[in-house]
Parts: sequence; structure tokens; C-alpha cells
Amino acid sequence: MAGRQRDISVSEFFLKNRHLLGFDTPAKALATAVREAVDNALDACEEAGILPEISVQVIDRYGKYRVVVEDNGPGIVENQIARIFGKLLYGSKFHKLSQSRGQQGMGISAAGMYAQLTVGKPLHIISRIKRDPLASELYVSIDVARNRPDIHRKKRLEWDRPHGTRVEMEMEGHYQMGPHSIETYLKQTAIANPHVTLVYMDPQGAELRFERTVRKLPPRPKEIKPHPYGIELGRLIQMLSSTTKHTLLQFLIGEFSRVGRKTALEMIAQAGGRLSARSYPKHIARAQATALHRAIQKTRVQAPRTDCIVPIGEQSLLKGLRKELAADFFTVTTRPAAAYRGNPFQVEVGIAYGSKEDADIEIDARGHMCKKAPDGGEELLAQKNEPVRLLRFANRVPLLYQQASCAITKAVVQINWRGYGLQQGKGALPVAPMAIMVHVASVWVPYTSESKEAIEPYPEILKEIKLGLQQCGRELAHYLRREAHLHEEYDRRSYIETFLPHIGVALQEMLALTDQERDAAMKKLDDTLHLSRAEGHRP
Amino acid sequence: MAGRQRDISVSEFFLKNRHLLGFDTPAKALATAVREAVDNALDACEEAGILPEISVQVIDRYGKYRVVVEDNGPGIVENQIARIFGKLLYGSKFHKLSQSRGQQGMGISAAGMYAQLTVGKPLHIISRIKRDPLASELYVSIDVARNRPDIHRKKRLEWDRPHGTRVEMEMEGHYQMGPHSIETYLKQTAIANPHVTLVYMDPQGAELRFERTVRKLPPRPKEIKPHPYGIELGRLIQMLSSTTKHTLLQFLIGEFSRVGRKTALEMIAQAGGRLSARSYPKHIARAQATALHRAIQKTRVQAPRTDCIVPIGEQSLLKGLRKELAADFFTVTTRPAAAYRGNPFQVEVGIAYGSKEDADIEIDARGHMCKKAPDGGEELLAQKNEPVRLLRFANRVPLLYQQASCAITKAVVQINWRGYGLQQGKGALPVAPMAIMVHVASVWVPYTSESKEAIEPYPEILKEIKLGLQQCGRELAHYLRREAHLHEEYDRRSYIETFLPHIGVALQEMLALTDQERDAAMKKLDDTLHLSRAEGHRP
Repeated sequence: MAGRQRDISVSEFFLKNRHLLGFDTPAKALATAVREAVDNALDACEEAGILPEISVQVIDRYGKYRVVVEDNGPGIVENQIARIFGKLLYGSKFHKLSQSRGQQGMGISAAGMYAQLTVGKPLHIISRIKRDPLASELYVSIDVARNRPDIHRKKRLEWDRPHGTRVEMEMEGHYQMGPHSIETYLKQTAIANPHVTLVYMDPQGAELRFERTVRKLPPRPKEIKPHPYGIELGRLIQMLSSTTKHTLLQFLIGEFSRVGRKTALEMIAQAGGRLSARSYPKHIARAQATALHRAIQKTRVQAPRTDCIVPIGEQSLLKGLRKELAADFFTVTTRPAAAYRGNPFQVEVGIAYGSKEDADIEIDARGHMCKKAPDGGEELLAQKNEPVRLLRFANRVPLLYQQASCAITKAVVQINWRGYGLQQGKGALPVAPMAIMVHVASVWVPYTSESKEAIEPYPEILKEIKLGLQQCGRELAHYLRREAHLHEEYDRRSYIETFLPHIGVALQEMLALTDQERDAAMKKLDDTLHLSRAEGHRP
Repeated sequence: MAGRQRDISVSEFFLKNRHLLGFDTPAKALATAVREAVDNALDACEEAGILPEISVQVIDRYGKYRVVVEDNGPGIVENQIARIFGKLLYGSKFHKLSQSRGQQGMGISAAGMYAQLTVGKPLHIISRIKRDPLASELYVSIDVARNRPDIHRKKRLEWDRPHGTRVEMEMEGHYQMGPHSIETYLKQTAIANPHVTLVYMDPQGAELRFERTVRKLPPRPKEIKPHPYGIELGRLIQMLSSTTKHTLLQFLIGEFSRVGRKTALEMIAQAGGRLSARSYPKHIARAQATALHRAIQKTRVQAPRTDCIVPIGEQSLLKGLRKELAADFFTVTTRPAAAYRGNPFQVEVGIAYGSKEDADIEIDARGHMCKKAPDGGEELLAQKNEPVRLLRFANRVPLLYQQASCAITKAVVQINWRGYGLQQGKGALPVAPMAIMVHVASVWVPYTSESKEAIEPYPEILKEIKLGLQQCGRELAHYLRREAHLHEEYDRRSYIETFLPHIGVALQEMLALTDQERDAAMKKLDDTLHLSRAEGHRP
């Protein structure tokens, strides 16, 4: 048996388990590949302070599909290109705590691996960095058994872009419309990223443009150190043994966020034993580290910094929703930042309610009333008798799959929407012509799988989402009550207007009034009726 | 930016994403650690042809828990111990196609990593192989940044077991009862593995024993080669370039299952071009490989071999269900083997229906009728007005989490159970005092995450589960109809028995019959009534 034991390369693992990365069906694989390439492009542009302009092209190649994604980002230095595109678990975002779309260093290489598996051709990459007179062109595949890049060809060439990256791959795929389509992904990306311009050419050659509505980049998220409360004992031991700091005091101040000299000294004093400010971190034994860990939990430390998180912001969010959704009522909220396991995160919620009371009924050409056919585009608002549509986002990326296992769905289902005037079955989404948008931004989003399609329902995250939903729910209830009141008002108004003249005529006859006297009396009656009702309704 | 790009070790990745491996909450972490250790022990015993006897102990250590799992398996050779327990993605099961509980080479090392993270102590392992006079004892932790084992101590020692392995770890945890408990896992393991004896000592020191009911090991699953239909182009190219075979003919026959000389020659002829039986595999270019791949799909090949899969079997399954569930009606079915992506798999379904019509109502000590308190043990059958309980298994391992995203749940929900006489809401589990057991056995179970809690709903797998459910559903419907008929019969019978004597007395008075004449008339009337009703009910 011993002879059979052997290493498993991480590429082999994910090739066999490719559904974990979102490549289980041809339709999903195609959408995932586009998403990975676009997310990378957006991250690269924003990190370099460039307003992103991204073009996506999907070309039908006799049943296979060629995907081309091109950005105006900073470009990639040549000696990094092969590893970024040809190696799983390689990247710049995993080891730092800051908000970005990518975090694992897997997505685009996984797309390449899937392309290689199904069509057998390497990735084709062109990239040019600023002030370099030429661009670099590489053909890269993955050596799956070793998880390392194979470079097939490499050359320098002229490229009309001053800087940017272009990646092209060919894969088996299935082109689909609807809620899981590339169009939906791009449309929702535009909602959460109003500073981005996206141009999409679909397999039929039709062009779809999403122009930016905001001409300013969101502030760049700051990178942070871990917060001491989120550090488990084992992690602390590992940090102590690998730090470059020479004293415990320096270690505590330098390796953690929110720990100053005073707090650090307090922690050391609380730990007691033989620990002192000058203890050499690498020599601290497990028992002492355990005491230190306990001391850290007991010391008062400020809540995590939150400038590492950049929410979309209520104003931009509202703008994005208004642009893409045809609704009558909008409300948004950006919650204050919170933390789970020491990782800061922030929740934003938006609700769009389109009182399309009769919008799904129309009169057809022959004069019959009939159900209105849905228009061409993917509808982001639910129909009147449907469960609300959820728009889920993590670090500004729309999440289109695995809705059932997502923290956002769980939070929405756990809210009592009947309290806000909506219909809702037990354990189900509320039913209304409405869309609920939830954005979770964090330095580390805990996804339920490597394909990054749903957020793990950590209790702290669930709680924040619920608070945001409740806040928007109250606004919604207010609106719905006012709407209901207006409807009622309208009904009574027309009632009065219908019957008042008849009363007028009757009075005139009984009391033998002149026309003028009658009109004056009616005017007075009308005013009185409205006044008394308005008073009756005063809260 | 270039300077920040770096490798991410697979251990770091999973440490940060530990919810992917089932270690997100302390309660789940504890249950997952036990499961990983027990699954490994079962695999090891069965592979060595030993009837498994496994003891599990969970000890409360002032809020931390110590987990000890000991088996009578074959033991592990000393130089493999450290890597098996101290390195992710290392093992014997990933690279071969055969049915086993483990497949990733991650579970037990991940448990160790979590122990190390939360308590900081290394794993403690004792293992002895047959005919070795001494056992080996090692203390192993993971060097997370490098994904390799750190051996803290190692020695040889006397051990009273002739062979076996004992692993001990201490971790943060939360001990819980109910459907996600260690007890439930063990109980369900006993159902699917009637050849196993499990002894469990819980933190209160109470012992729970599950004795084997079958004294024979299941047949050992055969290892197979991949089936040619399941091979993607990219994989074929990779196999061609890494094979040790010298001709294309040898390659096709030797590397695939179900390909003999005749089939291989047919594939080569179909591929055409410059390919011949004697082509050297490593020199076959991409274009030729593409032609070969197409030819393979066009050639008739026998369905995958299925002796690589060992189902539980209808008889053992029934035995297991009867032993652990108090139901009135049982039905089971083992479907024929099928394949997804070239991987053979087999589905088994069992239904236990406990017509506990009034079982949840009882008379209390004061003579009042009240709702029956659930008894101590975890109830595997649903209550009368609850959704049915699902018992999900993959390769004989119970799946306790992530029910919503599992192929088994999706299949159950998609069946129209009203057709079989049960209540069911739209898109929901049927409501009945019932348990549905589904077992999916495969050489490669596609789990939805590394924590192996749910099966990815591949269409072929969904279809097979549904066929199994329908088959059992028909049996159930038959039983329920018979039950309903019996109930009705009983009702009518008692109706007749109540009123017939009164009719007798009336007739006797009206017609002045003797008692004997009356009884004879009544007997005749009774017979006639039953006869006519029996005829009326004949289908």
C-alpha cells in the first residue's frame, strides 16, 4: 500500500473537481471564463488608478467558443505572465488583506485549464506595460501534473494600445440567455461598478454597451494587518516563529492592526509569566504563546479599521439601480463596517419596487386583454406574482449561481416581510414586483466554494445583511402604506366627485336654492369632507 | 505590482478557506474531524480485507475537545505516516479509479491543521503493521507555508494491538446533539455499513455500541482504467504524451477500459490521416489527436465495467434500515450501474414508512391527551406532519450537511410524490412519517465542495436517483393503497357489525322469525354484503 501513496498536484485536483471552480457544464464554463477574465481586468485597472474600459467578445467557432477579453489596465511584466495564466494558486491578492475581486489566484488559470482540456489549445496573451515600446505575446498552457506553466511561444510585437492586457482562449461551451447569461453578469456588473465602461460583442455580432455614469474611480482600498481578535492560537504561534521583528513589543505593534505601544504593553503584562516586551518572538514556547493569546482576547482593542473596505456608496448604488431597473420606488442603505473572524466587512442593501400592478396585462391587436409578453432584455425585477429577484454581489462582483446556499438568500428568507406589507410563504422569498440588491464587501469574502458563487453564512455576516434588509424594509413599508393610502384616497375622491353633484341637485330641489347657492354649498361640503378625512388620517 | 505576485501553498489556501473543508464552526469542525478519521479507518480496514472494528472517543478538556480514533486496520509504514497526516493533497486514492470513502488526500490532514490552528498541538499518531514487533509513535504538525509535515517527536514503542492505527488530536469544538451530531453520523454509518462494529464513548463517558449484523466484508471494489467515452480531448493529449506504451494500438488497449484489439483498430481506422496502429504516441500532433478523439466517440465501445462499484445491496440495505428505523413498511432498490463523464456509478434507494398515525399523541399521567415527547435518540423517521427525513450517502458515508445543494435532495424534490399518495408542496420535500435513503456509489463522487457534504447534481446522476425513487415510490403507493383499503374495509366491517343485529331484531319482529331463522337470514345477509362489496372493489 505504501508504494501507492503519492502527491496530488493542485491542478490535477481541480481538473478532476472542475465543478468546484465553476466549470461543470459547458454553459456555466463559458460564463465563468468571461467572469474570471473581466474580474481580473477590473482589479488590475483599479489597482493602477485607471478608469476601466473593458471589451468582451464571444465568437462561435463551429460549436466551440472563442473568448477574448481586453482591458486598458497597466499590463503585466513579461516574466510574470506565464505564471499568472498557467499556474493555480499564484497571485498577488491572497496574502494581503485588502478588498479585491480576485483573491485565490486560480480563476483565470482554471479557465485556461478548461480550455486546454476541451479544445487543447493554449491561452493566447498579449500584454503591454506603460512606456514599453513593444508588447509581449505568449502562448501558455498548464503542466497539470506539476501545476506549472508551459510556454509554447513567446515574442515581442507592436500593439496599438499604450498599455493593457488581452487574453484569448477557445473552449467547449454552450451559449445561453437568461439569469445566468453573460449579458446578465455584465448588466449587474454595471450596476455595482458605475465607473466602468463595458463593451460586449455577442456570438451573433451584436454589440451591447454599458457606459460609465460615474467618471471617478472609487477610492483605493487600503491594505491592513490582521486584527488581533481574529487570530487563532495556531496562527499566532506561526506568526511568532516567522516574524522578522526582534522583540515581542515590536511584533505586536508591527504585525497587527489597531495595536499601539500602550495596548501591546498591556497585552504583555496581562500574559504574565516570563514574557516581557523584549522577549525574542522566535523563542516563545507554546505555553507562553497560549498565555499571550488569552491575554490578547482580554485586552481592549479598537474595532478593526474600515478604510480597507470601499463600499459602492448609497449615491452610486442608487444611480446604478435607477439606470438598469424600471421601478417606481428605490431605497438603499450602506451599513457601518463590521468584522467576522477579525476580517472587516461591510454590507449594502438596495430595494427597487416596481408597482407594476397591471403591467403584465395588455390589450392585444384584436382588442383582447392578454398577458404581456416579456420584452427582450433580461428582467431584473420580478413579475407581480413571482418571488422577488435577488441581485447578489461580493466585492462588486455579481453572483449568479448557487443562490440557495448563499448567506444573502438565507438572510432575505429569515426576514418577516409580511411585517413590511409583502406576501411571503414560510421559509421562502417574499412575493412582489421587486428586486433586492445586497452587496458584501470584505478584505476576505468567505465563499462557499472556489467558484465564488455564494457567501458562507457566517453569523456576523448574516446579522449585518438582516439589519440592512430591515432598514430598507421599513422604508419600503412606509412607501407601500403611502401608496395604499393614495389609492384609497383616490377611490374616495372619485366617489365624492361622482355623488356630490347628485346631492347638489337634490338639495337644490328640496331647499329651492339658486344655482349659485347650490355651488357654494357644494364647495363648502366638499371642503368639509376632505378636511375631516384628512384629520381622521393624521397619524 | 510584479514583486507582489507569489505562490500560495495549498495548506494556506485551505486554512484561510477552512469552511470549504468543513471546519467553519466549532460544532461542525468536531464532527468533521471524527468523520475524516473514521472514514480513513474504514477504507484502510476494507482495503486490507479486515472486518473493521473502530473505537471513537471524544473527551471534554475544559472547553477544548480531544478526539481519539483507533482501528484494527493494517497500520501504516513508518515513513508514510508524517506525509499522510501532515500534508494536504497526499494519498493513495486520488489517482486510481476505484470506490473508496476518501478520495482527495486532504481530510485527516485538514483536521490536524484545524487542531494545530485552534489549540496549537500536533497530531499524535500510533501505528503498527502486521508482524512488526513494535509500533511507531509520531507527533506531526503541518508546515502551512510549505504544505509539508513537521515531525516533532518519533519513537518505537510496545503496543498491545497486533496491527492498527490510533490518531489523537485536540481542538476547539462544540459538542452538539441532533441531526448533525457525531451520534447521527455513527448511526447512519452503521446503516450503510452493516459489516462494521463501532464503539463510541461520548464526552459524558457514556458508551454507545453499533454491533455488526453482517460478518462478511463487502467484495473489494476493482480498480479500473478510464472509459474512452469520458476522456476529453485535452486529457487524451496529455495521456498520449505521458504514456509508457510504444504504439498507438498498445496505448488504446492498455490505457482504457473496454478497448480490445478490434475496437482499438476500428478507432485508428476511423481517425484516418497519418495515424496507424504503430504510430508512436508521444509524436502524435494536436490535429491528429483531435481526429483520434472524434474517432473514439464514433466507435462503439461497451458500457463501463461496473465491478469497480460495490453497492450495499438490497438485502444488507434492508437489514440496516430495519435495525435502525422503527417503521411499518420498507422498500429498497439497487439500480443497475450507469456512468457520468465516463465514471461508473450506482444508485440505491430505500424508503421506510412508519404509519405512526397517532404515534405523536399519547395519554399522559393525568389522563390528558398530549403531544408525545420525542425519545432520547435522534429520530431518523420524520413525524407525521413533517417533511420526510433524507438519509444521504456517498460511498457508504453519511452526508449530514448542505442538504439543500445535494443532487439527492434535488431529485427527491423533483419527483411528484402526490402521484404516490403523499402530500407535497411545490418544490418541497413530501410530508409523511417517512425516511428516504439514497446511496450513490462511484469511483469518483463529484462533491460540491472539499468537505464532501453534498453531491453535485450532474444530469446522469439526477436521472438515476429519480428512477430509483420512482421505483420505490410505486411500491410505497401500492402499500399505502392497500393500507387505505384495509382502513376502509375495517370501517365498513365495523359498520355492518354494529347495525346488522338491529336489522336482525327488526326483521324478526316484522316477519315473526324464530331465532334460528333470524340468525340464518343475518348470516346470509352478512355474506351477501361482503361479497357484493368485495366484487365492487375488484379492480
